[in-house]
Amino acid sequence: MPNASDLLNARLPRGFSDHRGAELHIVRTMIEKLRVVYERYGFELLETPSIEYADSLGKFLPDQDRPNEGVFSFKDDDGQWLCLRYDLTAPLARYVAENFDTMSLPFRRYQIGQVFRNEKPGAGRYREFTQFDADAVGTASMAADAEFCMLAADAMAVVGLKTGEFIVKVNNRKVLNGILETIGVPSGAAGEATRVAVLRAMDKLDRLGREGVRQLLGKGRRDESGDFTPGAGLSPAAADRVLAFLAATGGGRGATCDVLAALVEDSAVGREGVAELREIDVLLAEGGFDIDRVRFDPSVVRGLAYYTGPVFEAELTFEVRDERDNPVNFGSVGGGGRYDDLVERFKGVSVPATGVSLGISRLAAALSAKGLADVAQARGPVVVAAMDKAGLISAQAIVRELRNAGISSEVYLGSGKLGAQFKYADRRGSPIAVIEGGDERAKGVVKIKDLVRGAQRAKTATSREEWRNREDVEIDVPRAAVVENVRKILSRQSG
Amino acid sequence: MPNASDLLNARLPRGFSDHRGAELHIVRTMIEKLRVVYERYGFELLETPSIEYADSLGKFLPDQDRPNEGVFSFKDDDGQWLCLRYDLTAPLARYVAENFDTMSLPFRRYQIGQVFRNEKPGAGRYREFTQFDADAVGTASMAADAEFCMLAADAMAVVGLKTGEFIVKVNNRKVLNGILETIGVPSGAAGEATRVAVLRAMDKLDRLGREGVRQLLGKGRRDESGDFTPGAGLSPAAADRVLAFLAATGGGRGATCDVLAALVEDSAVGREGVAELREIDVLLAEGGFDIDRVRFDPSVVRGLAYYTGPVFEAELTFEVRDERDNPVNFGSVGGGGRYDDLVERFKGVSVPATGVSLGISRLAAALSAKGLADVAQARGPVVVAAMDKAGLISAQAIVRELRNAGISSEVYLGSGKLGAQFKYADRRGSPIAVIEGGDERAKGVVKIKDLVRGAQRAKTATSREEWRNREDVEIDVPRAAVVENVRKILSRQSG
Repeated sequence: MPNASDLLNARLPRGFSDHRGAELHIVRTMIEKLRVVYERYGFELLETPSIEYADSLGKFLPDQDRPNEGVFSFKDDDGQWLCLRYDLTAPLARYVAENFDTMSLPFRRYQIGQVFRNEKPGAGRYREFTQFDADAVGTASMAADAEFCMLAADAMAVVGLKTGEFIVKVNNRKVLNGILETIGVPSGAAGEATRVAVLRAMDKLDRLGREGVRQLLGKGRRDESGDFTPGAGLSPAAADRVLAFLAATGGGRGATCDVLAALVEDSAVGREGVAELREIDVLLAEGGFDIDRVRFDPSVVRGLAYYTGPVFEAELTFEVRDERDNPVNFGSVGGGGRYDDLVERFKGVSVPATGVSLGISRLAAALSAKGLADVAQARGPVVVAAMDKAGLISAQAIVRELRNAGISSEVYLGSGKLGAQFKYADRRGSPIAVIEGGDERAKGVVKIKDLVRGAQRAKTATSREEWRNREDVEIDVPRAAVVENVRKILSRQSG
Repeated sequence: MPNASDLLNARLPRGFSDHRGAELHIVRTMIEKLRVVYERYGFELLETPSIEYADSLGKFLPDQDRPNEGVFSFKDDDGQWLCLRYDLTAPLARYVAENFDTMSLPFRRYQIGQVFRNEKPGAGRYREFTQFDADAVGTASMAADAEFCMLAADAMAVVGLKTGEFIVKVNNRKVLNGILETIGVPSGAAGEATRVAVLRAMDKLDRLGREGVRQLLGKGRRDESGDFTPGAGLSPAAADRVLAFLAATGGGRGATCDVLAALVEDSAVGREGVAELREIDVLLAEGGFDIDRVRFDPSVVRGLAYYTGPVFEAELTFEVRDERDNPVNFGSVGGGGRYDDLVERFKGVSVPATGVSLGISRLAAALSAKGLADVAQARGPVVVAAMDKAGLISAQAIVRELRNAGISSEVYLGSGKLGAQFKYADRRGSPIAVIEGGDERAKGVVKIKDLVRGAQRAKTATSREEWRNREDVEIDVPRAAVVENVRKILSRQSG
């Protein structure tokens, strides 16, 4: 046995976490529901490795301010740099490029996997988390973009959200570029700083409102704390034009397109973007996706530099209260868009692609908060108490019968006495405990305790007598009738 | 567009692989079947991160000859060494130690996850692969070990293997230590080299037979190529004793225990090991697990240094033929055992634990080779051809109806003509293609092609006429009857 001073300190690196029990069950159930929708849409499952060559992933990091930062990397034996994937899109581009000559396009794939960010962890920000992506590679059709809007809406519905509790917002990078063009921001490197400043200002509409955005578009903005953020330096007329652009979200999708069309009339790329949105609108309307599910919203910017056309954002619109009764908004739980250039750096030809990614843990947290997670299903196994060595074999036989009947169950195999065994069953969230002590065995009966009702009784009992009245919490049943009675109680509990 | 010389080379690092389509579907279906069994046994799902502190994982690498080699590691920002987990057991020990004061034992968890080995990849040896583990931590009861034998057997059955196509072999490290003790191999460091040599020799019984093992136990063995492997240096009498030990596998489990008991009579640890096996035997017999499913086999060694009691091995016993008609044996698809010391290095107290791990890709490969994988379920989506811009909206409507009916389907959204669209459907493994061209639309009908029957017809047709008789391969149905007819064909295909 090691000395105390030699003992290792068991701990997780910061920014990583363990998951178990009900939390994990909720995530898994949710993922299985999502899978059904994605496969119904004809997406095929792909798995790529967690590790890729650093040069294959390239500089397509989400944070365009710090390309190549935020990635876990290390050298292979042969000196080449490897890294842990930071998303599922860059590996998809590598996969398509590597198999380009033999594969059939479009490639419609979905993928669920861990991604890694070597960043300072913060509240709700982890260095490893799960992404759920779907993409269609090799299609320039707006029908693909329309389909991802429908898919996102259907995904929200299948996990239990009602229309009105979520919204899929759609914009188009070409329209954004169009409006930048009409206010005189040069394309390419010359306009880069202004472009970034304008997009950042637009992105803050939700948080700062129109006046705040107007300041950020112009000379800059001083916040309540006195901090000053320099502005994009637009003229008041240009800023007005951007604000008119942002305001074009009322009414139907067609009305939004009309406003946008007028604003970007002088820009070829802007006109192209509006035409794409109109195509998407027709397909959405045909599918019965009205503006209560999919809306056009010019304020949707999305951070990734690689988007080239339509961009999407799936947002939750309901509010829940936290334990201190403060309102909590979950906001965006996913998004995506068209990226026509990602495969090009491998193949030298443009391979149009589009897709959408869901944030699994955020969505699961929202469902839990909303009470939509299936908690009953997350219950632990039936625990059969083992009182002594002879009882162990008998307990094992009971468990086998329960398992053969499809009931999750186990014999308590620790070293604790009956009290510890009940505490164990409680911690496991067990619905039922089964006890066959010496007394019971002599009588040929088995005691069955409804732990769910027992817990309720302990809470609501107003008198000692009532609490002691355990007739409908504990019953003795003949040994041969254990499975039947356990099943009866389980169905009572879930009904 | 980049210059050709600037193009990146899309490639995977050696030892890593992509997975998609039918292969992945088979693995996933198999895992879902296994989950049901594991949860029925009362195991709770745990997820730990892919990354851990190097010192937490420790030196419990599978390959005891090269501790700490074979792990991907890199430094965190604060200078501490991180590594990618190489198995799911070391992180489990860290988890239990970290939460020891608040958790209820036994902790019965299962975990499915990627593990990483920084090793030279070879045929079928990958640097990232999936493990499927179940462990019970905090139980010294042989009932837990017996349960893992039953679990392994039930797992083989649930994925479709029949009794006789697999065997769970059980041994006990204490019995192995007992036999080493009786032949005079000193315990501890003094006997280390001999002990390793003897265990290695025993492990080769399957491959080299009794004579080969006898040579390796004694002076050494020269193989056909002339290479000489030095032996353990045992006396002929000691070697005979080991060979008698290895031979104790015929007859029932009780008979094996009797032979072993006689051989290790003089060793306290050996007697303890036999007593443990007898306990396991009683529980297995009660559960109806006869020697056609769980056998005691003294030749089971298992490589991991950390095992301290019973060890298990799940082996496939059937043979299949590869494409060159050579016999292929899959052998071991999983194993495990009792490790009572793994949490101790954190907590300073012994926490008895036992568990079993399955090799997911090996098992899936075996099921595929045996024809047990559900290939029909791995079919692609119904593909609806899109002939023109007007057709796209109509095709989208057809797809929506199919999806609402729960049928996986998609509109072809690439840029290819009808021939390319059929080729695409073929590559996707689509069961049905739906076509609504201008002619059909004018008549209010839709063409439905049974691609499965079409492929069969193309193979079996003996005359041009027969091949051309496509009446039962292609039908025109009214637009309103598309879903009904697709469903009919799908059920015909799977029936």
